[in-house]
Amino acid sequence: MIRVGIIGATGYAGGELVRLLLGHKEAEIKWYGSRSYVDRKYAEVYQNMFQMVDDRCLDDNMEEMAEQVDVIFTATPQGLCASLVNENILNKVKLIDLSADFRIKSVDVYEKWYNIRHKAPQYIEEAVYGLCEVNRDEIKKARLIANPGCYPTCSFLSVYPLVKEGLIDPNTIIIDAKSGTSGAGRGAKVDNLFCEVNENIKAYGVAGHRHTPEIEEQLSYAAGKPVVISFTPHLVPMQRGILVTAYASLEKEATYEEVKAVYDKYYDKEHFIRVLDKDTCPQTKWVEGSNFVDVNFKLDPRTGRIIMMGAMDNLVKGAAGQAVQNMNLMFGLDEAEGLQIAPMFP
Amino acid sequence: MIRVGIIGATGYAGGELVRLLLGHKEAEIKWYGSRSYVDRKYAEVYQNMFQMVDDRCLDDNMEEMAEQVDVIFTATPQGLCASLVNENILNKVKLIDLSADFRIKSVDVYEKWYNIRHKAPQYIEEAVYGLCEVNRDEIKKARLIANPGCYPTCSFLSVYPLVKEGLIDPNTIIIDAKSGTSGAGRGAKVDNLFCEVNENIKAYGVAGHRHTPEIEEQLSYAAGKPVVISFTPHLVPMQRGILVTAYASLEKEATYEEVKAVYDKYYDKEHFIRVLDKDTCPQTKWVEGSNFVDVNFKLDPRTGRIIMMGAMDNLVKGAAGQAVQNMNLMFGLDEAEGLQIAPMFP
Amino acid sequence: MIRVGIIGATGYAGGELVRLLLGHKEAEIKWYGSRSYVDRKYAEVYQNMFQMVDDRCLDDNMEEMAEQVDVIFTATPQGLCASLVNENILNKVKLIDLSADFRIKSVDVYEKWYNIRHKAPQYIEEAVYGLCEVNRDEIKKARLIANPGCYPTCSFLSVYPLVKEGLIDPNTIIIDAKSGTSGAGRGAKVDNLFCEVNENIKAYGVAGHRHTPEIEEQLSYAAGKPVVISFTPHLVPMQRGILVTAYASLEKEATYEEVKAVYDKYYDKEHFIRVLDKDTCPQTKWVEGSNFVDVNFKLDPRTGRIIMMGAMDNLVKGAAGQAVQNMNLMFGLDEAEGLQIAPMFP
Amino acid sequence: MIRVGIIGATGYAGGELVRLLLGHKEAEIKWYGSRSYVDRKYAEVYQNMFQMVDDRCLDDNMEEMAEQVDVIFTATPQGLCASLVNENILNKVKLIDLSADFRIKSVDVYEKWYNIRHKAPQYIEEAVYGLCEVNRDEIKKARLIANPGCYPTCSFLSVYPLVKEGLIDPNTIIIDAKSGTSGAGRGAKVDNLFCEVNENIKAYGVAGHRHTPEIEEQLSYAAGKPVVISFTPHLVPMQRGILVTAYASLEKEATYEEVKAVYDKYYDKEHFIRVLDKDTCPQTKWVEGSNFVDVNFKLDPRTGRIIMMGAMDNLVKGAAGQAVQNMNLMFGLDEAEGLQIAPMFP
Repeated sequence: MIRVGIIGATGYAGGELVRLLLGHKEAEIKWYGSRSYVDRKYAEVYQNMFQMVDDRCLDDNMEEMAEQVDVIFTATPQGLCASLVNENILNKVKLIDLSADFRIKSVDVYEKWYNIRHKAPQYIEEAVYGLCEVNRDEIKKARLIANPGCYPTCSFLSVYPLVKEGLIDPNTIIIDAKSGTSGAGRGAKVDNLFCEVNENIKAYGVAGHRHTPEIEEQLSYAAGKPVVISFTPHLVPMQRGILVTAYASLEKEATYEEVKAVYDKYYDKEHFIRVLDKDTCPQTKWVEGSNFVDVNFKLDPRTGRIIMMGAMDNLVKGAAGQAVQNMNLMFGLDEAEGLQIAPMFP
Repeated sequence: MIRVGIIGATGYAGGELVRLLLGHKEAEIKWYGSRSYVDRKYAEVYQNMFQMVDDRCLDDNMEEMAEQVDVIFTATPQGLCASLVNENILNKVKLIDLSADFRIKSVDVYEKWYNIRHKAPQYIEEAVYGLCEVNRDEIKKARLIANPGCYPTCSFLSVYPLVKEGLIDPNTIIIDAKSGTSGAGRGAKVDNLFCEVNENIKAYGVAGHRHTPEIEEQLSYAAGKPVVISFTPHLVPMQRGILVTAYASLEKEATYEEVKAVYDKYYDKEHFIRVLDKDTCPQTKWVEGSNFVDVNFKLDPRTGRIIMMGAMDNLVKGAAGQAVQNMNLMFGLDEAEGLQIAPMFP
Repeated sequence: MIRVGIIGATGYAGGELVRLLLGHKEAEIKWYGSRSYVDRKYAEVYQNMFQMVDDRCLDDNMEEMAEQVDVIFTATPQGLCASLVNENILNKVKLIDLSADFRIKSVDVYEKWYNIRHKAPQYIEEAVYGLCEVNRDEIKKARLIANPGCYPTCSFLSVYPLVKEGLIDPNTIIIDAKSGTSGAGRGAKVDNLFCEVNENIKAYGVAGHRHTPEIEEQLSYAAGKPVVISFTPHLVPMQRGILVTAYASLEKEATYEEVKAVYDKYYDKEHFIRVLDKDTCPQTKWVEGSNFVDVNFKLDPRTGRIIMMGAMDNLVKGAAGQAVQNMNLMFGLDEAEGLQIAPMFP
Repeated sequence: MIRVGIIGATGYAGGELVRLLLGHKEAEIKWYGSRSYVDRKYAEVYQNMFQMVDDRCLDDNMEEMAEQVDVIFTATPQGLCASLVNENILNKVKLIDLSADFRIKSVDVYEKWYNIRHKAPQYIEEAVYGLCEVNRDEIKKARLIANPGCYPTCSFLSVYPLVKEGLIDPNTIIIDAKSGTSGAGRGAKVDNLFCEVNENIKAYGVAGHRHTPEIEEQLSYAAGKPVVISFTPHLVPMQRGILVTAYASLEKEATYEEVKAVYDKYYDKEHFIRVLDKDTCPQTKWVEGSNFVDVNFKLDPRTGRIIMMGAMDNLVKGAAGQAVQNMNLMFGLDEAEGLQIAPMFP
């Protein structure tokens, strides 16, 4: 039984880790870390866990936690994981960081976009970007995983095969993304009140959202050259779900079958990536609660562009689900253990 | 492996049966019956099941189905199950009817409230009302289960211990219930369009809703005398969930501890009924996607009344989940098999 | 032109006052008071008012405001209005308080239910309860109006004629009310985040909500004797709207026509109260954005009870709209000026 | 008093026409046309109009209607207006068609994208495209107005000044649009049920939506050359509102001030188009219920692109509001009469 510690267990991503790990046959949560709710019963904070979780919340002492568990998830704001990690900890436990601290290889880029000084740059190189379908082998050997951001996961997976195979010009990529509100976290902010979010849609972080360099870095590896893109996130009146609509110019004419074959080449054997049937558009509702990413595309001969789409649950494949998938890989378990959840509809 | 057939597999309750049974270790769906979608791939109708269900929809031939499966669920409009069932079928398979056909022991009452002629009154007596926590032993031996209605399940379980123990006057019970829209089914009706339901709440079926006699019959058994109640359902702009707020006059003064002890007497060992902590009100969100019913109560010394509350997912404990729980009991399996699902939040 | 000052102009009720007064032909807002946003442009806080309101927010100095305006609305938390009002101010301006400070005639009851010491008990007697359809004549002569609470307005108007005429036993009244989230205000609280409110319904303040004594006091006046009721509010995932479902025992048998005649006696000439056609249930959506209260009822001969229903926009007739209606009465204007707004659908 | 007839008065756009015209000082609805509800009271179909509209629905006999009214609005599916219009009618009344029948000058393009044969091609040339801010003078003289589509209005107005002034390369324009569900109409379709739309977002009509050629035609006029764009609409779980996020490559570097000056040049005097302050993103909620279009932009020097945004209420400026604005122009009234409505928030 893998012993698990969670720092940030009372945020939305932390709560989702708890939900998923309760259904995991080989893991057991030993430490519910929550600075804001220390000593409160976890099931008082998340009443859905009443009679399922009896533990109380503990603080976020990573040193002590490392003595008691085999793997630590940090589901916390940027900067916290980097401020706590050290060699002693990494020698004792696996560390899966759901924040952005170790996702970007360039300290300068990180510090510029996040406007924060990196406290542990010495671990950036070692950290493995935990996009399971792309970096599976490195993940298996890693001590420290940078769990990908929600937008980057859905954005990258929607366009990756075509970038990798050179079918599209990567510098023409425009990603228009739409997210449910749980992505904004459980903090008490006027902007996230029901009355402000409901019956509303807006763009935010236009031309400056922090997930942009993360997406660009991964696309650059795929393309084998620097890639600069446009990325615009939007807030949608729903709880869960990210939809990505991505546009790019084709390098040359291509048929549906040719493009489909490229997607299949990369995703056909991937359990959690579903390339939908022709002309079926991904919808967030069809993946809700699951670890699936649904992708598809449409050629537009009129403009010479291709429209690529992806849908995903931001709290599962975009956060806690992918983190568990990484844990499974790191501990040599079945990659899908604890994640064999059918999407819930409606 | 229990072989399962579903008639009405493409309605919301049918879809929920599929979701739950896919996670059931000892059951396998062999027949996806759907008159409207015969020959269509099930996963085209419910895209969430893409790559999880490969079967095509079949018709609702109960005779033929009975040759191929061990248990049949009918998740269909009133009247259909009664029109198909016969001795031959009941000799071959277990039958769990999610419609109201066999819930009410009096044919007259059924025909009056449902305005339909009962096609198989000879099976009403035999049918067991599948409220697992109350009729567990009879369910285990039954051939034919009348799976309880969504409102009746939540209403009855919220007040049952107090009626049974005589703490409240059952004829003062007023049940004000609120349901999400999935309870209205997947039919294409203007009233259930997003633009009509969203930002709206309304009562309907006031003083005449068909679930009234079902609740009254069960309460009468508990009280040992005829019970007449007020029941008002409301439509709420959410997908899933039923909340019941029930009012009744206490037979005599009672303390919190006394009432709590009565709830605990009946529910303490029940896995799927959670009596919440003092002063915690049930919320539909805390049970979403799960088979739990959360109940609690509040004494009001000013009025001599008690307010009893219950929250439940109408598609799970209110339909498909309870149906699976019944199946587990009928086949001697662990009652919670396939239903050990943590509620999803948010 | 009536000069208007608003204290609390950036709350939801304050924002609604601004929306309504912008369409009022004889009023002009001179002072947008908002302690939290002093010096900020009002239209930055409420971007809907961009290019419609150029003013900046001011503080809540009631003394100074009284020099510059003819009427002051206080749309603030309990206690503030009572702490600011004095004879000097009341001699200069009309004061319409949207908080509960002057709604309840008994200081003891107020202090017990609100858990706050009343700072200006000397004005309680003088204050007129601003339920326009009931106290119209007193309102016209008042200096100080206690604008009714949202739940009390809808609750009281739904049952008033039957209590007044003695058709129902007032002490059997049970009011089950459901409100949109704007009633909870614009404060940044986790409980009111989109992800907590959406797909959820819950009761709150069970057997102890502060609007209970307000409703009871008004019912007592109507009944001519003390009335004690059950009142349970619920939070519904919508922005606006209150629905009241009220239950009571009939004093004696009555026909639809008899009851209808009683409603008509009181409401037939009331512009803002619509007694719906037989069997049509009030829905919050049909009154959204307007000052209407839709009421109707259903007799239940089985139980000897009557179910009374009312729907209203909590921010309009339940707050800002009724406040403007009061202002119109106080200044001798057409009672409906600025309030002739058709409900918006969908 | 202008006498008005509406064909399709019980659809969502028709209902919005009624709401707006009830507040119009110089117009009076004489004919509520609704094929589906002939002889039913209008206020039974739209209960919000109870006691405000006493009329019954009539059929859609345009010939007879032309005898009784001064202006006819057709808020009907494509093809109906073209099948009814003739010289006799146009000689008697003004006609404002909210369908697409007369929006596209090329019959071939219309018939190809709409897959319908045009029944009155002889009036296409005469019809004026009723985008008030662009074609004001022609509208004043027109007999027949093609009221613009919802997406085209918001899309075009978001990018128009930059195309007109040559700041962007029009063939690089990519429009990613998001709409509330009322745009899909009031027809009873499974896809538009609450349970299908809620908690969901999806693209539809990808690379083939019918509004594409309408947008392209108008952009071509502005650019003075043929323009081909990418346009992708999405369905969002809200009732009202369209948000447009448009991307294009700048023809050359430009500062914020330069681009702002271009927007101001075209929109500064336009009452219904609000160019927001720097860095303020349009949100649909800030315009709900009003005739405003909020636009803004963001330069992205990293990519050489500009992101242009627009938000609008699809039923007002995107349909009924713009139709009334057109009527005002045609009859020489104040262009804003009946449309001076503050957006409702929340």
